[in-house]
This record gives sequence, C-alpha cells and structure tokens, in this order.
Amino acid sequence: MERGLARERDFDSKPFLELNTPFSTERSATLEDEEGKLIRSQKEVQVEDTDDQAQEAIAKEEDKVDVKMSNQAPHPALMIPGPIEFDDQVLQSMSHYSESHVNQPFVNTFGEVLSGLRRLFQTTNPASQPFVISGSGTLGWDMVASNITEPGDEALVLHTGYFADSFADCLETYGVKATQLKAPIGDRPQLDEVEKALSEKEYKIVTVTHVDTSTGVLSDIKALSELVHKVSPKTLVIVDGVCSVGCEEIRFDDWGLDVVLTASQKAIGVPAGLSILMVSGRAIETFKARKTRPTSYFGSWKNWLPIMQNYEAKKPSYFATPSPQLVHALHTSLSQILSRPLAERFADHKAASQKVKQAVTALGLKQLASKPENQANGMTAIYLPDGIAPPDVLPGLVKKGVVFAGGLHKEIATKYIRFGHMGVSVTDGKREDIDKSIGYLKESLAEVGYKA
Amino acid sequence: MERGLARERDFDSKPFLELNTPFSTERSATLEDEEGKLIRSQKEVQVEDTDDQAQEAIAKEEDKVDVKMSNQAPHPALMIPGPIEFDDQVLQSMSHYSESHVNQPFVNTFGEVLSGLRRLFQTTNPASQPFVISGSGTLGWDMVASNITEPGDEALVLHTGYFADSFADCLETYGVKATQLKAPIGDRPQLDEVEKALSEKEYKIVTVTHVDTSTGVLSDIKALSELVHKVSPKTLVIVDGVCSVGCEEIRFDDWGLDVVLTASQKAIGVPAGLSILMVSGRAIETFKARKTRPTSYFGSWKNWLPIMQNYEAKKPSYFATPSPQLVHALHTSLSQILSRPLAERFADHKAASQKVKQAVTALGLKQLASKPENQANGMTAIYLPDGIAPPDVLPGLVKKGVVFAGGLHKEIATKYIRFGHMGVSVTDGKREDIDKSIGYLKESLAEVGYKA
Repeated sequence: MERGLARERDFDSKPFLELNTPFSTERSATLEDEEGKLIRSQKEVQVEDTDDQAQEAIAKEEDKVDVKMSNQAPHPALMIPGPIEFDDQVLQSMSHYSESHVNQPFVNTFGEVLSGLRRLFQTTNPASQPFVISGSGTLGWDMVASNITEPGDEALVLHTGYFADSFADCLETYGVKATQLKAPIGDRPQLDEVEKALSEKEYKIVTVTHVDTSTGVLSDIKALSELVHKVSPKTLVIVDGVCSVGCEEIRFDDWGLDVVLTASQKAIGVPAGLSILMVSGRAIETFKARKTRPTSYFGSWKNWLPIMQNYEAKKPSYFATPSPQLVHALHTSLSQILSRPLAERFADHKAASQKVKQAVTALGLKQLASKPENQANGMTAIYLPDGIAPPDVLPGLVKKGVVFAGGLHKEIATKYIRFGHMGVSVTDGKREDIDKSIGYLKESLAEVGYKA
Repeated sequence: MERGLARERDFDSKPFLELNTPFSTERSATLEDEEGKLIRSQKEVQVEDTDDQAQEAIAKEEDKVDVKMSNQAPHPALMIPGPIEFDDQVLQSMSHYSESHVNQPFVNTFGEVLSGLRRLFQTTNPASQPFVISGSGTLGWDMVASNITEPGDEALVLHTGYFADSFADCLETYGVKATQLKAPIGDRPQLDEVEKALSEKEYKIVTVTHVDTSTGVLSDIKALSELVHKVSPKTLVIVDGVCSVGCEEIRFDDWGLDVVLTASQKAIGVPAGLSILMVSGRAIETFKARKTRPTSYFGSWKNWLPIMQNYEAKKPSYFATPSPQLVHALHTSLSQILSRPLAERFADHKAASQKVKQAVTALGLKQLASKPENQANGMTAIYLPDGIAPPDVLPGLVKKGVVFAGGLHKEIATKYIRFGHMGVSVTDGKREDIDKSIGYLKESLAEVGYKA
C-alpha cells in the first residue's frame, strides 16, 4: 500500500451488491486465501487434516482446557484485541434480574454510567454529551456519518489499517465524500501529510483510528488534534477509540476532541453489545445546525439526545429499549476503572505492553508497527517467522490455554497474529494471563520448529 | 384519532430538530402532561409529595421487596410488556465467560441460534434468512427501510398505536413515502379499508404491528397477508413482531410473510440488546435487485447477509462484533421454547391472557382493545377507573411486588396502565406472577377507593 491520498471512489463504482469480501471474514485458526481456499502449512497439507477437523479439535480443547483464573468456568484466556477477559463481578452484573428500562432503579444506574463516562473520557465540560446505545463500535461510525456530516460533505480519513477502509465505506453510505490519507502498513500518516491534505480542501471532519485493531498501530491523537485546530479550525476531530478507550490516555477536553466513539468489549471490559460515544458541545452544535434531517433513525441523535440527557438527569425516558443488563455490567466495570487514578491504569497497560513487545523482540519477531511511537499499548500485532502461518500455531495455543487472533489486514492476513493485552488481564494482579501467554507463544513456536 | 388514510407529511414539515416529544418519554410511575408538568392525583397534590420523593420511594421499595420467584435476587415481578421476567438459566447464560466471536465454540452457538429461529418463526423454506444483530427492535425498522425500500418508494403503514407513528417516521428518514391507515384507538384498520388503500397506489411494502405495545391491539396477520397477496401481489408484507414473536402464533411460510422483525426482551425471553429478523427469499431478492445501495451501514444486509449465512454454516465471519453473552442467552431461551410444541406455548399465553382479561372485566374495567378479536395474548392495556391515574396505583403495586407500565399512547397516556403476560411468567408453573399480579391490582384499586 502506498502512502498518500486516495478518494474512495471505488465505493461508488463497486456494484453495491458485492457482498463482504473474503478477507472481511476475520480469521483465527482458519485462514483462507483471497479465492476462499484454505491456506495451510506444508505439514497440514501433508497430513490432509481438514479445516473442519481442526476447528472441531479447537472446540473440544476449549471445552477441556483447565485454566482457572477466576471463579468463571475453566476456559482458555481470551487474549485477542477484543472481546477481552472480563472481571467476575462484571459478568455477574450481566445476570441482573429484569428491570423496567423506565423505572427509577435502572434510570439511576444508567445516569451514573453516563456521568462515569465523563470521567473516563476526562471531560468536565458540561456541553460534552455521552451516548450509550445498544449496538457495536460500528454503529458509532453510523452516528457520526448520519448526525454530524450531511450528504456532500467532505471527510478526511486517516488510514492505519482495515478500520479506516470501513469507516470510509460507512461515510460514503451516507453520501459523505471520504478521502483516505494512507500510510504503509504498520505506519501512520505523518503530521506534515495531514497538514498538506487539510490545506487542499475544506473538510467537515477528519477521522482517525486511535488504535487500528487490524495492525496495532497507535495514532498520536493529541498532536493530530492540535494540528487540525491550528490549520483547519472548523474541521471536527473524530476519533475511533474502539481499541483505545480504557487503555490509552485520552483527554477529551484538553486535546479538543469532538467525538470519541468506542465499544464495550475492549479495554472498557464489558461484553460486546454497546456503542459508546463522547461528543463535544461543538459537535452537538454542528448536529443542531444541520440543514437536512439525520440520515439514520436508530442512530439519530434527534432521537437519542433527549433520552441521554434525561437518563443522566435520572428522569425516565424512552426512544428504544436499552439493555439493562449490559448497562449494569458497564456500571460495574466503570466503578472498578474509576476507583483508582486513570494515569495508573494507562501506566499498567504501557508496562504490560512493553513486557509483551520485549518478549516478541527477544523471540526475534517483528511487529507490524515497527516504530515504537506507532505501537499500541493494548495489543501487539506480530509477524510470524517465515514459513509459519497462523493455523500452525493458533490451535496449539488454545490447547495450552490462550486464544490469540489471526491477521485481519487483507494484504498480509496470513502472515501475522494479534495478541491483546487489555483490562483485567493487565490490571488484576491475581491473573497471570500476560506471562502465560508469552510463555505459550514461545513454546508453540518452538514446537513448530522455530528457533529464536 | 379518526379512521382513515393520512400521509405522514408532518414528518417532512416538522423542523427536523424538534427532539423527542414529551409523550415519547415512556411513563411508569411518573407522568407528565403534554407541557411536561407532572400529572398527579388529587391526593398527591394535597400532600405535596414531590415526584422525586415518589421515585425515591419506589427505588427503596424495589430494594426492599421480597418476592422470591426463582434463585434470582429478590425483586418485584416485572409484568410490563417488555422487558419481561427472565428464566434463571437464561440469566446465567448472560454471565458466560468471554469467547472470541470468530472461534468455533461461539460460531457453533450462533449457528444453532439462527437455525432455532427458523423453527420459532415456522419457516422451512431455505430461502428464508434469519438475522440477529446487536441493537433493539427499532433497528429492525431501519433494516427494512434501508434494505428493502429505496428513496421514493411508497409504504402503507397500518396504524394500531404509537409504534406505527415511529415506524412511519423511520421510513421517512430513509426517504420512503409512508402513508398511514389509521383506526380509532383500540381498533385496527379493517380489511376492506386496507384493500381500498392498496387499490389506490402501488405500495412497495405494507407494514403492520402485530401487537402494538402502546395499546395491546392485535392485528390479524394471516388474513392481512392473504389480502395483500390477492389484491397487490408485488407488495411485501412487513410485520413488526416485537411484542408478538414467542407469544402469538406466526407461521412465516404458510402466511406468506416477507419480514417479521422483533427484539429479544419480550416473549423470546432474553435481556434487551438484540434485533432479530426473519426475512423471506422474496424480500432478499428485492434487496438484491436494489438500484441504489443500502442507505444504512450498520444495518446494511450487504454487510450482514454473508455474515449470517456464514454463522449458520458454522464458518467464522466478521463484519461487526456480535454480543456472545446475549447470543448465549438467546440460545438458552430458544432451547427452552423449542423443547415443547409451539402450539402449546401459544395456548398457554392465550389462557393466561384470558385469565387476566376476565379479571379485568370482573373488576369493571375496560381494555383499550374492546373487541375480543383485537386483543393481544401477551399483554393487556387497561383503562383505569375515572379519577384514578397511573401514579395513584403504580407505586403501590411495586410495593406489593409487581411492576406494571403506564400508558404510552400520547392521546390517553394518563388514563391507562399496561400489564404484560409473556414468557416464564406464563409458562413456568412454579411462578405465580399472573395470579399475584391480578390480586395486587385488585387490592391497589380498592386502596385508592375504587369499588368494582
């Protein structure tokens, strides 16, 4: 992939019914090439092990494996970049008895969640607006595209992996013109390139993936936002923080961010099912100044803004039914996260990340993000040694007791694995997930003949 | 409200930023009039009880109340028309340890859920397509509006309450022209009126709310679908089954339905957070024949169709992260529902409904749905006696151990309450939710001076 600007015209010219491409099948132990054929190591092909058999084996191993890290049923530690391992109390909150979504006990819980999110995002500006809506991180893109931008608006999408392509596709779906600024795999667009792009056109928004889950590339949100405010002050700064909120420092007010969108199942430590956003007063004003109505109904802030304001004021309110159980789990996790200084939490993630990255380097392996300043603190994307593919090691790792993820970046999906280190696996001193995962990775590579 | 056709032009002429109207605040113990002022009974006004105090009292009562119907923490029985009371095992499934959304154990679970939904909707046609996506019932409207219809298409919306207004608003959001066929409150559009409307224009879809949660009005889906197929065979039949799937008979194939959309938290018996749809082969072909791309990204079947097909084929696949815990809970609930003949389940709901409705009549109270053929089997919307408002009885009912819902239909929200009778409260013989709820209602009315 070349560095530089690329208007995503291909989204317009593609027949709209070209369904998901093969590489959007996220692979773990199973990998297919772009024609959909299974990619196998030589060894596997020799023994004619079928994919189905391999998957069955994993299923059986996951049933058998006995890794007791809590009072949860025995299971391999889930060390992928989301969903992550969850705290026992968070999982217990998922079993909360049924409550009315408009009666006071639940309304109080929801209100406290929204207030807690202000602290997590480090915003004290009362004009900032948190949203918590049933969905996934992806829904956050729709909310940006359908509430902040209008058809015909221009968006500059900074590309550090798979998720920028998807965000651009989402924007184009809503009639927004998305121009991607791309960097080579493992790198990120540089500030001078962003400045040049911003000088060429009036962009309504610039979007950046704080950590791209497909590559483990970290963007420098603070410096980027400063630049945008300086050279294109009207442009809103939109951060996809799906793989960063809760493990990377984010100072919403201080850095002048306009939207940070995320999901529940990564460093926030709650099962998947919630789309979570913090939106600046400036972004809300931009929304209110729209000339056209929002282009989504379920994601419309016209529908949700009064509901979120009412919940935070602890007044019952209804647009669409929220998930009380997920909101309770978020309440529990936020209470845990906010019980100690956020700076300590971020330092813990940095330390765990350094431990993983040093172990990877000691093993003679390279990361997709080669420059230290580009490396995420909540995950590591690791190139496998030549001749070793994810299916050679992932099933064995499950057997030992750890689940890693395969590659996701279409051009190199068969060449790397992803190791997530977020949440309780990092912050809970009783867990040994990180050390064990590193050890198992070493063993597995040795077992397939790799010598560091 | 007058019977007859009404193109929802008001959605066009409204300033788009008119936020949610006061009555879209779903009320339970608290009620406000259309100016937002609290509606109180004379008694309450006399004692100057503030709303905040009343809500606090409910919160405290809900903490104290000791109604043990299972091994869940003590809590008042939630007898609103969704969310409903949940089975212990379903709630335990919500606490399932974390799994990768693309590893085989979870993929198998998801695949079984999709197959199970075919049985629940009574479809054996392989062209039918189930969808399970993080969201709420509302998201199902967006999926219809953005995948089946295209901007400029005509939709006939049959109105039996609040949710038709909202579905029409959703359709208009996506540029679809929604014409509502309205009936007086408590009634439903008659077949001859529908036939007349269909003869006047070429409608791409007709939408019907199987049970409108705001009124408890049941529509006759079978007869309606037969009529549509006869007089306007190209028109697709879209059923909002949020308050019907799992408690009202639905024969997807036999009745020639094109979409039935629902949510998890009602008669399916799973905490809120899932949008669930069954879509006919004809509807999928209509989607594939679109001239324009889908107008939603998160709700796009272009993105989801291959994912759902892969999950059902037990192949890992990724577009947006599903919620493994909610899918596990759905798996558990579907297993329970499908462990006995569906006909028995529907008969149980009919019997419980008859018991409630007979008790209501014996109390001298009227239902919004006055004609027996219009009455839902999973809920009852009950007019309170003259001079008694929901805040007069709902807090006392909570204290006794049952939560009912206030009114939701804007024109009469302060005059009625809603009693939900779905799921385990009906089918679990060990529970006494229905009998106790009827008894408490009687007592509460007597306590505020009502004599049957």
